[in-house]
Amino acid sequence: MEQFSALPLVVLSEQFAALPGIGMKTAQRLAYAVMEMPTEQAEAFAAAILNARNTVHECSKCCNLTEQTVCSVCANVKRDASTICVVEGPKDVTAIERVGEYHGVYHVLHGLISPLDGVSPEQLRVDALLARVRSGGVKELIMATNPSVEGEATAMYLSRLFKPLDVKVTRLAFGLPVGGVIEYTDEVTLFRALSNRSEM
Amino acid sequence: MEQFSALPLVVLSEQFAALPGIGMKTAQRLAYAVMEMPTEQAEAFAAAILNARNTVHECSKCCNLTEQTVCSVCANVKRDASTICVVEGPKDVTAIERVGEYHGVYHVLHGLISPLDGVSPEQLRVDALLARVRSGGVKELIMATNPSVEGEATAMYLSRLFKPLDVKVTRLAFGLPVGGVIEYTDEVTLFRALSNRSEM
Repeated sequence: MEQFSALPLVVLSEQFAALPGIGMKTAQRLAYAVMEMPTEQAEAFAAAILNARNTVHECSKCCNLTEQTVCSVCANVKRDASTICVVEGPKDVTAIERVGEYHGVYHVLHGLISPLDGVSPEQLRVDALLARVRSGGVKELIMATNPSVEGEATAMYLSRLFKPLDVKVTRLAFGLPVGGVIEYTDEVTLFRALSNRSEM
Repeated sequence: MEQFSALPLVVLSEQFAALPGIGMKTAQRLAYAVMEMPTEQAEAFAAAILNARNTVHECSKCCNLTEQTVCSVCANVKRDASTICVVEGPKDVTAIERVGEYHGVYHVLHGLISPLDGVSPEQLRVDALLARVRSGGVKELIMATNPSVEGEATAMYLSRLFKPLDVKVTRLAFGLPVGGVIEYTDEVTLFRALSNRSEM
């Protein structure tokens, strides 16, 4: 750690460095930036952190982050509550909502099963999903976890858990990304694109 | 701006995005990271911002950031107060202190003269430096500003301002960086290295 001229700056830069993707050098730069902003802005920054933590919590239905008891998607009667899109985190909900073509609801797991990182299904919002499905009315679960080892393992685990409950479990399609180049596509993606080919 | 599920997250990510080098995507990621940290850590983060702003201010002598009235360098009687190293910001003091070979004191300008950015000498800590020199005992001012257009202009301006006050004004040496490669060195640096060559 760089030596600062004042201890509170060391403390502040350590707080920045605790954020993901922020190294020591950047953290130091950000700490100095906080010192250079107008006082009101620094106070607003601190207040924004506390306010976000105090007012934002998980939706009682889908576990997405919201200020309300039930999030805006779950509260929307026009959304099809019989289709649940299961995602890793709130960022994935944002990404899918941006498409504007999905009219079902979501379930946010807040993580993926990862034995190496010590994350077991009990630490995810699997029980809440189980309760939603058991309460009836759910026809389809779309596994929209990342195409990574953890994402695949989680989708597989949930698929085995929910199939006996007489609910259709689907997975996002794999294949060539639009705008991609076959020449530079990795073997696994190309294999998936070949095996899942559709008639024209 | 990405759509968030909750307004306080939008506000928090905008605060992060106001920091230098933090784009909208990163700001969003950091806002979610704050939501994922333990409550105590989020509170400590907010407190660190306020604490740094409330307790850290400029040293009454050299204008470096400190918690005391006078910073540790200025308060150190072993430091040679007759030599003042003039730097752009607190980061430069840290860098020079790391060398461990400079025994004089500093003066932090908190910026560089830059007419394009609307920064004139009046906005820098030039008056404070003038007062230090006028109070006597200063033999040398080392211009340790960056070798940029603004850094050069500031060094030049201060040199003209202080030379009539019977004080020696020096500039950091320019030349090949240690470990550098002549083949890849830019023309200006090579020209400086040639013209400032020393006898072996």
